[in-house]
Amino acid sequence: MAMGDTLPLIHKVGLPPKQTIFQEFNHNMKEIFFSDNPLSKFKNQSGSRKFVLGLQAVFPIFYWGRSYNLKTFRDDLIAGLTIASLCIPQDIAYASLANLDPHYGLYTSFVTPLVYAFMGSSRDIAIGPVSVVSLLLGTMLTDEISDYKSHEYLRLAFTATFFAGITQLALGVLRLGFLIDFVSHAAIMGFMSGAAITIALQQLKGLLGIQNFTKKTDIVSVMRSVWSTTHHGWNWHTIVIGVAFLVFLLITKYISKKNKKLFWMAAIAPMISVILSTFFVYITRADKKGVSIVRHIKKGVNPSSGSEIFFSGKYLGPGVRIGVIAAMVALTEAAAIGRTFAVIKDYSLDGNKEMLAMGTMNIIGSLTSCYLATGSFSRTAVNFMAGCKTAVSNIVMSIVVLLTLILITPLFKYTPNAVLSSIIIVVVLGFVNIDVVVLLWKIDKFDFLACMGAFFGVIFKSVEIGLLIAVIISFAKILLQVTRPRTAVLGKVPGTSVYRNIQQYPKATQIPGMFIIRVDSAIYFSNSNYIKDRILRCLANEDAQRTGSESHRILYLIVEMSPVADIDTSGIHAFQELYKSLQKREVQLVLANPGPIVMEKLYASKLIDLIGEHKIFLSVSDAVATFGTKG
Amino acid sequence: MAMGDTLPLIHKVGLPPKQTIFQEFNHNMKEIFFSDNPLSKFKNQSGSRKFVLGLQAVFPIFYWGRSYNLKTFRDDLIAGLTIASLCIPQDIAYASLANLDPHYGLYTSFVTPLVYAFMGSSRDIAIGPVSVVSLLLGTMLTDEISDYKSHEYLRLAFTATFFAGITQLALGVLRLGFLIDFVSHAAIMGFMSGAAITIALQQLKGLLGIQNFTKKTDIVSVMRSVWSTTHHGWNWHTIVIGVAFLVFLLITKYISKKNKKLFWMAAIAPMISVILSTFFVYITRADKKGVSIVRHIKKGVNPSSGSEIFFSGKYLGPGVRIGVIAAMVALTEAAAIGRTFAVIKDYSLDGNKEMLAMGTMNIIGSLTSCYLATGSFSRTAVNFMAGCKTAVSNIVMSIVVLLTLILITPLFKYTPNAVLSSIIIVVVLGFVNIDVVVLLWKIDKFDFLACMGAFFGVIFKSVEIGLLIAVIISFAKILLQVTRPRTAVLGKVPGTSVYRNIQQYPKATQIPGMFIIRVDSAIYFSNSNYIKDRILRCLANEDAQRTGSESHRILYLIVEMSPVADIDTSGIHAFQELYKSLQKREVQLVLANPGPIVMEKLYASKLIDLIGEHKIFLSVSDAVATFGTKG
Repeated sequence: MAMGDTLPLIHKVGLPPKQTIFQEFNHNMKEIFFSDNPLSKFKNQSGSRKFVLGLQAVFPIFYWGRSYNLKTFRDDLIAGLTIASLCIPQDIAYASLANLDPHYGLYTSFVTPLVYAFMGSSRDIAIGPVSVVSLLLGTMLTDEISDYKSHEYLRLAFTATFFAGITQLALGVLRLGFLIDFVSHAAIMGFMSGAAITIALQQLKGLLGIQNFTKKTDIVSVMRSVWSTTHHGWNWHTIVIGVAFLVFLLITKYISKKNKKLFWMAAIAPMISVILSTFFVYITRADKKGVSIVRHIKKGVNPSSGSEIFFSGKYLGPGVRIGVIAAMVALTEAAAIGRTFAVIKDYSLDGNKEMLAMGTMNIIGSLTSCYLATGSFSRTAVNFMAGCKTAVSNIVMSIVVLLTLILITPLFKYTPNAVLSSIIIVVVLGFVNIDVVVLLWKIDKFDFLACMGAFFGVIFKSVEIGLLIAVIISFAKILLQVTRPRTAVLGKVPGTSVYRNIQQYPKATQIPGMFIIRVDSAIYFSNSNYIKDRILRCLANEDAQRTGSESHRILYLIVEMSPVADIDTSGIHAFQELYKSLQKREVQLVLANPGPIVMEKLYASKLIDLIGEHKIFLSVSDAVATFGTKG
Repeated sequence: MAMGDTLPLIHKVGLPPKQTIFQEFNHNMKEIFFSDNPLSKFKNQSGSRKFVLGLQAVFPIFYWGRSYNLKTFRDDLIAGLTIASLCIPQDIAYASLANLDPHYGLYTSFVTPLVYAFMGSSRDIAIGPVSVVSLLLGTMLTDEISDYKSHEYLRLAFTATFFAGITQLALGVLRLGFLIDFVSHAAIMGFMSGAAITIALQQLKGLLGIQNFTKKTDIVSVMRSVWSTTHHGWNWHTIVIGVAFLVFLLITKYISKKNKKLFWMAAIAPMISVILSTFFVYITRADKKGVSIVRHIKKGVNPSSGSEIFFSGKYLGPGVRIGVIAAMVALTEAAAIGRTFAVIKDYSLDGNKEMLAMGTMNIIGSLTSCYLATGSFSRTAVNFMAGCKTAVSNIVMSIVVLLTLILITPLFKYTPNAVLSSIIIVVVLGFVNIDVVVLLWKIDKFDFLACMGAFFGVIFKSVEIGLLIAVIISFAKILLQVTRPRTAVLGKVPGTSVYRNIQQYPKATQIPGMFIIRVDSAIYFSNSNYIKDRILRCLANEDAQRTGSESHRILYLIVEMSPVADIDTSGIHAFQELYKSLQKREVQLVLANPGPIVMEKLYASKLIDLIGEHKIFLSVSDAVATFGTKG
């Protein structure tokens, strides 16, 4: 390796084969929208085969359905029954978070999983209403129509669901699925935890049997509301029932966590709680003593609701807005869940195809009295642990919900709301994960800040403010990334021919008469001036430091270009300016390892003639070897 | 160098010294907001010295004023007189673009350059009303108040100017100057060219003496308006005067361009045109024959206008909005001009300080009957060529404008509008630069698209639509940059120990049993999933290709991390998922040259324990050497 310093083998920097504009454009578009190359399997196929493949692409059930067998069905049946027992009490409870009657939750759990089973590509996800989206929807709808008992409110809910579906479908069709990546996961986590705590706090109303509860969701208003009702607002019968089942649920959850084989205990505990508490209230007629009960739950399958959607009038605008926001949050949650389990089972999930499935299911849902559904975290985990193999478990769950709707909904009349509150609390508290927050703090302070910002935004203001903070923080990070890229000063690692960041390798030595800097980003309009200024500033500082020491004045500035994947006209312009400034200082500009695109643009812009082809090297060590001998 | 392959010297990957949270935060904030380290010169100074330095920082005139001498003043005087002769006809003409009376242009050229001279750090920039900002302001103001003769219109103009000043000041104080970098230069160029053509087309009204001219600015409406008035709307006397002076101006401009020493010809030609044409109209009383003249131009200095600004009421909102937009456009133009000349004379310009100066001058301007001013391209170029040395040339210009206001404005009464139109046309056509557009096409197709999008948006719709397109295209590019970073497959360049992109170096060879990929971006939430998927996809493709050939199955995936300057929790999570997926495929994950921050986070997240410290190498060649011997 030491040879490199004395007798360098200088290699010419490669210029890639010229592409036509069409090839270039085609390649770029492909990477942006079809990075997963979805059409590759259609190549060289007959017409009928292409049709089958196309059908399978839109309806994956035709793909995996062909190898479906009784063994797989048995697994899916067990998983389906398990999640059905979990989803029925959750559906009834979550509907109240959206300020809807309980049967809308059940409606949603009947239609949407069925549609998803045909179109979705995840094998584990369990579809239905979820707590955070229900709360978000409820909050935003109430902001528009405060009287949530009114028929307008229900219509607006269907409208928002419809446009949420349209949004999701459009994102899928236009292959813009990557847009949901623009909100940082850390911020989403903070938002979810905050929403979980907000939801849990809301349940104090049901758990304590408080009548006059605040409509606000922030922690201060809720706690004040709870406090002010201590003496005359709390209902002790309700508290006994609620707390008893809360403890029961927490114990079963604890057991399930300790012993993974007993996961079904936590899965069926909510159903058992509902049955026991309903029976108890029915026997004791505790409802006469002020224990609030579900009271009315409609029997029968989903009525059509297509005519209820606002396609014009003053509620169209709010409906679209709420729909778009809720759709994005729902997708973010579903994507996180889907990916998690896809990684565990090692299959790949097509984000755009998932959006297509989610969009279709919500559009159909909005026409059949459902509200916004997405992937549920708690039920998906149970589905996975119960050994589901395909989306058939969703179909099983859907059928059980259907039977419930047709046959036994009236039995839920005496179910105490306190138990539903207990069920919600136990589920949502699972979203609050202190360990993850500690990890965020350890790994990345900015992520921690994003998480906390969204979290406190939700609990101290509202879910919308929390969401807004999450989005703003995420964008701030993106903007910083593109305007303030990093640079590193390089030195030679002793005994090698490699040049590395001198901060990371304090033993790395700088070369007399030379200053080597690496730019760690593509050079675009958003950062070109910053990079130019920064290079000049670093050079000036270094020059000032070296003055007086034994080393020479800096004669060569070597810019290591390896990380510079791309450069635009502003970047080229910045290099022209850099060159001119260096010329005034009598410093030579040398480039090491520019990539193919940078090389192409250096030639296209004739900047290469300014810098000189002989000043462009394959590696820093080649450059140092060449000019070091002269210096 | 060949030694590296047979007897590798394995170097440990460095972990930088641990920083406290405060140090880290401090460092980050400094890079974002104080990257130019403005406080460095205040260090180790006495109190009184600090005061002087602070004063000089806010008012650079106290800095350069101390070394000011007669020789410099002579240069500034000549330059100042030259730009004054250019600015007076321009001011009168530009005011009409903003639908304001001509004297408001002169007012603006009196107050704002004076303020800038004390606070600005550019030595070349000439301050005053400019064509594009005037047009933009005029269009946006007319959208709010269509009757531009009304007093409300004037008040709204002052309001917008005031809030534009506040915006600029705030950006400077909060050190958010980098925000103007978010619009791509290519898009701005397209916008400026489009605006130039729009302005030129508007001048057909004055040049052809058309009475009933469309109020729209798009090319289709304007041409239709011009066409439909061919036979009865054009005034031939006006055309003769206008075209004669247009030819005169174009000839002087051409001469100045050919012979740089005669630059003053183009500089004084507008003034000569105004004087000659005014005299001609006065003598011939051509105004009686339908030649439109300035007619009334108010005498005297700027009246106070503080009480005219809307601080409440229904025009406050529009005033703020228009002010913010116009402020950003004005800053973008000033920054481009300031930088260009700072590079030529090799001094550095502090963007944030410039915003402070611009903000202050516009706030003071809005209180003294001025409208929005910024750096003028045409006058700055003349100022530079006339040999200006400091901002004193602006003071000279300002004094000349003051004398004009006090003494000779009534003489402009007979100035034909056709001459003003000719002057505007000649100036703005200089903004349209076909060569630059050709260069954009050659260097970067996306930049070309941005330029054309903004250009056609302006000429076929309106300046606002063009601006919107420019902003949207710029953001689209930023978003693509952060979600779709590039990766490169690396191979060994023969005869060296370096690994380079195999597309760029077709002779580079891949190593049997190994797959080497480089990630060319920091890994953040916005791209972590994409990068993970892409690596797995490339690996799968490569594996499929190699099957059947003589080379081994891929056992090692080496990720070259040199360009990965940073990684966040989502990125760490993506690597965990990548590790798990690779494990299932029995492929080992190896990292080459992770940077200091990545190393720190690998340790903090314990991901290092999963991957294994022995799988992290200083360079790709070290990694290949280590596992190549085993394979």
